[in-house]
Order: sequence, then structure tokens, then C-alpha cells
Amino acid sequence: MGVWVGLPPAKPASNEAAAVRASVRSYRKAHEVEVLRELAGLLEIPNVSSDSASIERNAEAIVQAYGRRGVRMELLRVPGAPPVVYGELPAPGAKRTVIFYAHYDGQPVRPSDWTGDPWKPVLRDGPLRDGGKEIPWNGLAAPLSPEWRLYGRSASDDKAPIVGLLAALDALRAAGRTPSVNLKFFFEGEEEAGSPHLESLLSANADRLRGDLWLLFDGPVHQTRRMALYFGARGVADVEITVYGPRRPLHSGHYGNWAVNPIAALVRLLGTMRDDEGRILVSGFSDDVRAPTAAEKRALAAAPPVDEELRRSLLLGRTEGEGAPLLDRLMLPALNLHGIAGGAVGPAATNSIPTEAVASIDIRLVPNQTPGRVRERIEEHVRRQGFTVVNEEPSAEMRLSHPRIAKLVWGAGYPASRTDMDLPVSRAVIRTVEEDRGEPVVNLPTLGGSIPMYLFAEILRAPVVGVPIANHDNDQHAANENLRLQNLWDGIEVYGALMARLGGVWEAEARP
Amino acid sequence: MGVWVGLPPAKPASNEAAAVRASVRSYRKAHEVEVLRELAGLLEIPNVSSDSASIERNAEAIVQAYGRRGVRMELLRVPGAPPVVYGELPAPGAKRTVIFYAHYDGQPVRPSDWTGDPWKPVLRDGPLRDGGKEIPWNGLAAPLSPEWRLYGRSASDDKAPIVGLLAALDALRAAGRTPSVNLKFFFEGEEEAGSPHLESLLSANADRLRGDLWLLFDGPVHQTRRMALYFGARGVADVEITVYGPRRPLHSGHYGNWAVNPIAALVRLLGTMRDDEGRILVSGFSDDVRAPTAAEKRALAAAPPVDEELRRSLLLGRTEGEGAPLLDRLMLPALNLHGIAGGAVGPAATNSIPTEAVASIDIRLVPNQTPGRVRERIEEHVRRQGFTVVNEEPSAEMRLSHPRIAKLVWGAGYPASRTDMDLPVSRAVIRTVEEDRGEPVVNLPTLGGSIPMYLFAEILRAPVVGVPIANHDNDQHAANENLRLQNLWDGIEVYGALMARLGGVWEAEARP
Repeated sequence: MGVWVGLPPAKPASNEAAAVRASVRSYRKAHEVEVLRELAGLLEIPNVSSDSASIERNAEAIVQAYGRRGVRMELLRVPGAPPVVYGELPAPGAKRTVIFYAHYDGQPVRPSDWTGDPWKPVLRDGPLRDGGKEIPWNGLAAPLSPEWRLYGRSASDDKAPIVGLLAALDALRAAGRTPSVNLKFFFEGEEEAGSPHLESLLSANADRLRGDLWLLFDGPVHQTRRMALYFGARGVADVEITVYGPRRPLHSGHYGNWAVNPIAALVRLLGTMRDDEGRILVSGFSDDVRAPTAAEKRALAAAPPVDEELRRSLLLGRTEGEGAPLLDRLMLPALNLHGIAGGAVGPAATNSIPTEAVASIDIRLVPNQTPGRVRERIEEHVRRQGFTVVNEEPSAEMRLSHPRIAKLVWGAGYPASRTDMDLPVSRAVIRTVEEDRGEPVVNLPTLGGSIPMYLFAEILRAPVVGVPIANHDNDQHAANENLRLQNLWDGIEVYGALMARLGGVWEAEARP
Repeated sequence: MGVWVGLPPAKPASNEAAAVRASVRSYRKAHEVEVLRELAGLLEIPNVSSDSASIERNAEAIVQAYGRRGVRMELLRVPGAPPVVYGELPAPGAKRTVIFYAHYDGQPVRPSDWTGDPWKPVLRDGPLRDGGKEIPWNGLAAPLSPEWRLYGRSASDDKAPIVGLLAALDALRAAGRTPSVNLKFFFEGEEEAGSPHLESLLSANADRLRGDLWLLFDGPVHQTRRMALYFGARGVADVEITVYGPRRPLHSGHYGNWAVNPIAALVRLLGTMRDDEGRILVSGFSDDVRAPTAAEKRALAAAPPVDEELRRSLLLGRTEGEGAPLLDRLMLPALNLHGIAGGAVGPAATNSIPTEAVASIDIRLVPNQTPGRVRERIEEHVRRQGFTVVNEEPSAEMRLSHPRIAKLVWGAGYPASRTDMDLPVSRAVIRTVEEDRGEPVVNLPTLGGSIPMYLFAEILRAPVVGVPIANHDNDQHAANENLRLQNLWDGIEVYGALMARLGGVWEAEARP
């Protein structure tokens, strides 16, 4: 079946799609204030994953809210972790099961950076940075302006989907429509802490979590405000490299060009690892990189161009990769020097040869690289530059007896993941969303960033597609996080379409 | 005349040298407690150059102390600077005039790092780090142990010479000896702040400061505890280099290997400037470097070896310059990367592409390099690496329209200086000190560090020799600065010899 990957809008939404959308939309229009109040209520509960008491209150509130809609709820627990709020809503006669993922925890806050309390949601008549004024909660009546914004931690990342899904369920019920797939809900409570227990939780609950598709409701839509879908994420490996100078700082006049300068040694080493076009110079590093598929190439070619505007807004006089488009670059591994430190600069600078210099690096992986093979190749490369590689602090004896030592300390890391965009399920998700929106969506073969999609793919053997709804200018992770109301309204319609129509579209796409 | 540069002790000190030393020593032995109390009294006055009120109290105390010895004192002032304490003591019949330089200001302190108050001098029966115990001031009686140490800011750097010279004057007077040269005393009050007004002060007082030799009483003796003389210092040029990434930090996953990584650009640039043996790779950089003279080579060859012990104590598995000795290395220019910063490392690290990366560099110069030519060559080198060089923060437009920009901000800098070790005056200083000590001194063609010796040489057209007396393990500039008593006693004898004998020895050395 033709889908709109890489093509301009070619056909109108099906009659059925239009009908579902119309019923969700009319429900939403009549209940805007209620939906917003439900989200604001959830935002009032602080949700940093380390704050166990508040996390439990969030979980309980979500259990109650979904329970009221007839979803069979429970909390999945592993020791020491916030619970996963889990729910099941079987659809009589449905052949396929779809798990809807979101997370209810939020990034830590620095309250002093915020205008107001991060957990006291505020409605504004526009973006705060454009002078958006506060709208009082009392007396609120539909229709609300779609350009209003709701401010608060997790307004967009990632409580909006949790409440948006509730509104979609309500809307379908009000229209007398039943879901076309069995629904499972999986709301994580420590995503912003790096999901340290996700793997053990998925393993421990693999049976219950069985399904034909995971949809990740997290992240922002495209910068053009068009709906985007993502089918993969880059993996990650991170390493901190330390090289050593004298045991104590030395006067750079009295000892300079005799005592080993660790900054000089480090910059020379780093300079051998990547060039300033982003090319990775480590031998064998890219051997495992698989070429883009035909569907990926089509999707890349069809994505709206954003590079030039982005480049200008970022004041970049050039981009790496000799000007290749951002999306193409994200299909490749990256070696990012995200931190370097040795001695001091600026007013704190002193004329001393420092004792060590450190670089902090994250490496973004693509299929079929693995953190283990990348680590081997990097360590081999560092050795070839004349260094003895250690993974722990070297002893005094070792430092004395080895002319060049590099300490490499690795984080855990995980591989990339990409769902084949040509699978019937992928085509079905794209088509369902495009037919709901009535315009092509931006289909991203991969996120540049890293999320552990591979866990769902590897442990649960299920395809994974990301369906973000938040505005791209949501200040996610920062102060004054916000959600544009139109994005929530659109999200509710997309959720309704996925619930009501995905089963049928999938059936059609799967037909030989 | 033969001097002991590079030779083992070859002849006993002259009878006259022995006689002068004996009389200074016997005076000192009888007055140890008085001398020490006079130094302690001066150490009680805080002396950070920015603390004007205390600085004036120091100056006044020194004027009083020298005035009591019959030296004609005055304060030399330029606006906004601590006064130079200046004195003259003409020697009837002397043909030559020697200016004795020291400084009465001290490094700033961090009181919390000190054991006790930095300006409450404490006598200890050994180094604090070896558990040296406090000796009460009351009841102190000679002979004091020469291994005792006096703790306090500027105990060694640089008030010891100011009080040591007073003791030498007293000792000569008690022995009925008159100085062999006209004496001028020049005590600076902002050396530790980088002598920002020294040039204007010397220029404004060039007539009064006329003389045949400047002796700099500052710095530590050799690590072997042998007396050292230095005939030069490396010059310095410093520069901070900034390269630019995106205007705001970007997620390294979502933008990595597309957005310019300023750390990557900086390390590649720095890697082209020097290798990890300290070789400077900037074209033309060393064109102006003059070769060592025969006397300098002899002095280098004769200096006691310290490299291996130093290397071991510093845990250096190698040294730069392919193992060449430290003193040889100091005859060459150095490009020291003393600070580098971009993004963050360690627990503060984030997966972001930072907005800029900065390196702080000091370049040590040797004759006949100049800061101006070095700057030209470095900027030309940076340009050749593809960068547009600016000296101020680039505008947004400039950043957008130039693919690679490097901002280079230069400090003032100044050239190196070396007094010819073969001049009669140089030979006379060496011989006077060696005959006093009864053993060869360590003659250093240059300090590795930078002090503005060139000012005396260029503005006043006078040769300059450094005569340090402090113990090398004095924790100068750090907390718990201290002076070993034997170093003070030796210093007083050397000062006495220079006052009483330099004129005669010089006369002999100058004879054709």
C-alpha cells in the first residue's frame, strides 16, 4: 500500500479517518477546560524520580485516572525503582496488541531559574519569552486559544501524553467507538534518570508485556510544527579520557617544555580521533555501520529542510560533514567531545603545568555497532598513539614506568535501534497518522539522541515507533517547560486515530 | 681571571674573603635572635600589594630600619602604585655603583590553607610537613638551630633579603669595614602583582637609578642547597584562544557531527602548534632564537644534575625534549598549554555541544625573540589552519559568515633577558660569591620563569644578576611559606661579601 513517505500529500484522508477525527475533535472542543484541568492536576504533583513519596503519589493518581476509564491497572515494581504504572484494556475481537509508552517522572528543576513554582501549573496567553500573560484558572471557558501554553514541569515531557490518552479514550467512548487493537499502557517513573531499571523490569514482566508494537509517546514534533514519527534512535557509548602530567602543578616557566604537559598530550590524542568535519579517524570504527535502507533514504529526502534556518539561528558559520543535511548526519555515528578540562582559563588561569587533563566524550552509535566493539577499537587506537591504556587510576609506580598513560573510564552504553520503515506495522502507523492529520508526517529513520529503544526490540522482540506530540519549542529539560495547547489537541486526535483505526489499517498493510 | 664556572672547587677562598666572612659570621652568631626578631617584626605587617594602608606601613618600617643604619631613604612614587622604597649609601672612593633589588610585597593568601595566621610569624624546629614544633618567641637565645624555620608570608619571598641586608650592614660596621661599591637599595611593592608600574617608575627615575649593576635578591637557591646565581630570565607572551560552536549548547545526540564542535576544532588547532615533546611547530617561531654562548654552555654542563630525582618525585614517566636536561630545555622557548576548557567533565558533564572552547597559553621567550614577532607568527599560523583571526568577540554576523573563527587575546608580555656571563661584572659576582662560599656556585644562564629583567637592561642599560638566598623548599607563593635559618645566615654572609669585596674583585676582573 502506498504511504506518504517521501511524497507530497497525494490523497485525502479516508472517510473513516475523517469521521474518527471529527468525533474526537468535537468531544475535545466541548471538554477543553476539563482536559486541561486534569493535566494541571497531575502537574501539581512533583515528579523527580528520586523523590519517592511524590513519585508514588503520581503513580496512584494515574492508576485512579485510568481506572475510572475502565482500564485494568497495576503497578509493576522492581526493588529500588519507581513503579511502572501499567494498564490493560482489551479490545474484543482485536488481533493485535499495542503498548503505549510514556513516562510520568520529570527532569530535576532549579527553582530559581523558573518564573514561578515548577509544580504550580500556569496557563499563559503565549510563550513567556514573548511576554505571555497569565490566564486565571477560575472562569476558564472553551474555546481556549490554541496558542495558549501550559507552563510546568512535565507539561510536555511527558505528562501531556498520559492525560491526552485519557481524553482520547473518553472521546472514543462518547462517540461509541471501540479500540481497534488491544491496548496496554506502560508509564515509566525514572526515564529522566536514565531508566536504570527498565531492562530488569522488562525482563521480569516479559510475558505480560507481550505485544505487536510499542508506541513511544515522548519528545517534540518537527520544527515546522508538523507531526513527526521516529523509527529509531542512536545508541551511545561514553568515555572519559585522562592523561597525566606531573604529580603536582608546576610553574610553567621553570618547568615548561621539560615536564610533560598533559593538555598538549591530550589535544594531540583527541586530534587523531576525529577531524573537524566530524569524520571519525579511529581505524575500523565504522566497519559495522549498515547503509540506510531504501525506505530510510526516501524518508530523509522527503523531510522538510531545516538546516539553513537552524544554522543561522545557531550562528554556525559552517556545519560538520561538509554541509551534509542534519538528518543524513544522524544516520552516521558521532564522536562528540562534550567536555575538556585541564588547568584553568580566563581570570582563574595560572602559569602552571597541570597534573592531568580530561576529555569527556559521548559516542553515538548506529546499527550495527555495539558499545563493546566501539570500546575495543577506541582503546586499540589510543594504544596505537603510544599510550598505555588503563581503566583505573594508575599507581605511582605505573606512572613512573610508563611514558604515556591514558585512563579510559567507560559508561554502560547501549546500541542503536531502528525499526524497519517498510514493515507493515511501520507503514500502518505512518498511514494512520497521516490520514488523521490530512498531510504527510515527517518520518525520521532515527533520532540523533539516544533512548533505549533497543530494550523493547531486543527483550520483547517488538517493533517500536515514536509518536511525539509536544511543541518543539517547549523548553523541555529546562526552566519554564511548557506545552502549546494546539499540540495537546492534535495529540488527542492522533491518539484517538491510533486507538480506533490502527488495527484496520495494519490489517490492510499486512495483506500480501 | 679564572672563575669556577663549571669547575670543581680549585682554590681556597682568598684570605680577604675568609676574613670578611669570619667577621660577618661572628657578628651574626652574636645577634641571631635580634636579626630574627627584626625579620619577624617586618613579617607582622600584611603586605598584599592591593592593601594600600598596610603597604604604606611596610614602606615606612623599611625606611625607618634603613634610616637607622645611615642609609639616605626616600619613597619613589608613581600614581596608583605602592611606593618603591629607595635608599642610597655612597662609599667614599668607590668607582662603581650597585643597586640591590628586593620586593616587600607578598603573594595573596588563602588564610584557610595556612596553619596559623600568615602574618603572625612562627618559629618551628623543622619543616611543618615533618611535624616541626613551634618554638616560643620569649626566652629565645643564640645559638639557634640552623634547621629551624621561620613561617609567615614573605618570610623567604621576599622580606628575608631586606632584613638580611640590614644585618650585613650592621656586621660590616661592627667590623670596621666599609662597602667597596656605592650602594643603592630598591625595594619594590608590587612584584607579586606583576610589577605593572615598574617600567614607568624606572623611566621616571632613570637618572637617580643609574648604576653599574643590578643585583636581584629574590628566588630560591639550588635544589642541592648550593648557592645559585642567575643571569637571565625567559620572557613571556600569553594568549587565550577561543573557538566557537553553536550560539547555545546543543544536545550532542540530536546535533552531534552536524553542529560544529568547538572542542574538536580547538584540539586540532592546538595539535598543530606544538607536539608532545614540546617542539613548537609554528613556522618561523624559532628563527630569532640565539644559540647559547660558550660561557652558557660551560655553566649548563657544570650544573649539578637534578633531572632524574625531579622526574621521579614528580611521577613523570618521561620528560619532553626526548629526555634533554631541564636546564638545556630552559634555553629554548616553550609553548605551554596551561589551561583548556569547554563543556564539562566528570559528574558535571552533560551531553551537549558547548558554545565555545578556550585554551590559555603562555609562551616563554628566549633571546632574541620579541612578543610582537611571536604574536605575528602565531596568528599567521592560526590563519594557515583555516581560521579567521580576531582579537575581540566576533559579532553574530561575523560568526555566521566565517566558517572558522579564532579569537586570540594577548597579554602585554615582555622579552627575555640574559646578562653575558663572560662580562667582567658577571665574573666578579661569581667569584665574590664563590670565594665567600668556598665552593662553586650553580650558575644559571637563565631562569625558566619570567621576571622583567629586561627593564633594567633596556631602560637603565645595566647588567643584572640574580642572587637568591631562600631555601628551595620554602613553599613560596603557597600556604605556610617559610625560611630555613641557615639560608638567612648564608645570605647575610653573601651580602656582606658583595658589599665589602665586589668592588675590588670587579676591578681585578676588569683589568685587561
